[in-house]
Amino acid sequence: MPDFMSAAIEEARKSLAEGGIPIGAVLVRDGAIIGRGHNRRVQEDDPILHAEIDCIRNAGRIRSYKGTVLYTTLMPCFLCSGALVQFGIEKVVVGDSRTFHGAPSFLRDHWVSVVEADSDECTALMKDFIARNPELWKEDIGAL
Amino acid sequence: MPDFMSAAIEEARKSLAEGGIPIGAVLVRDGAIIGRGHNRRVQEDDPILHAEIDCIRNAGRIRSYKGTVLYTTLMPCFLCSGALVQFGIEKVVVGDSRTFHGAPSFLRDHWVSVVEADSDECTALMKDFIARNPELWKEDIGAL
Repeated sequence: MPDFMSAAIEEARKSLAEGGIPIGAVLVRDGAIIGRGHNRRVQEDDPILHAEIDCIRNAGRIRSYKGTVLYTTLMPCFLCSGALVQFGIEKVVVGDSRTFHGAPSFLRDHWVSVVEADSDECTALMKDFIARNPELWKEDIGAL
Repeated sequence: MPDFMSAAIEEARKSLAEGGIPIGAVLVRDGAIIGRGHNRRVQEDDPILHAEIDCIRNAGRIRSYKGTVLYTTLMPCFLCSGALVQFGIEKVVVGDSRTFHGAPSFLRDHWVSVVEADSDECTALMKDFIARNPELWKEDIGAL
């Protein structure tokens, strides 16, 4: 697994330590991280700050997303996939695509390359969190 | 046009007065506005604060979006449409669907009802803004 996934996992663990949902993401261009973030629903009481959204926000106004790759610990939902499609982020590398189905077909249909890294560490993080916090998880994905 | 669209237009005009992109939105449930927002890319230097995202953020953690309707001055892009789909916002009323194509088919394919209000006022706001700020507009929709 590339180091960038480790950085995304680090973000997810940061969120967990803050009492939040353990999903993290980093945005990469030219081999360097240009943005990092994690889910902040709990920390900021903010429903739109999924990890990928927080990461894109923290990268700032970079104008063009050409050549960018997003590493995320969990398969992006429709909100986050919509951001990838709209901004033209070219590729997403996904840690866990087993716990949550997300929107891989939508991504691929809109020319975003989806790589499933199948990380046991990412899957364990999510599975354990969901088992302990089923209501919070449902809230995060709009399933209440 | 219902009053809720006037409230969305008020938000769009607020953004324009702040030097921002004139797109506004309100979230409605049971005949009352439960969130309002406008595009804040310029004001907050924040790429993800499209009007609809800002509006959903400002509505806070409402847990379920059942029975909600979003009024927006412009057809939602994939980012904002992804938010509608993921959170289960049931209906979107759109002021201007002429200036920007957005993602109406994606919305309808995912059971979001899309009503095109065809507001001349909304169209005029966007057309004028885009003519004066073509680069900023392209940046906002990831077209640079």
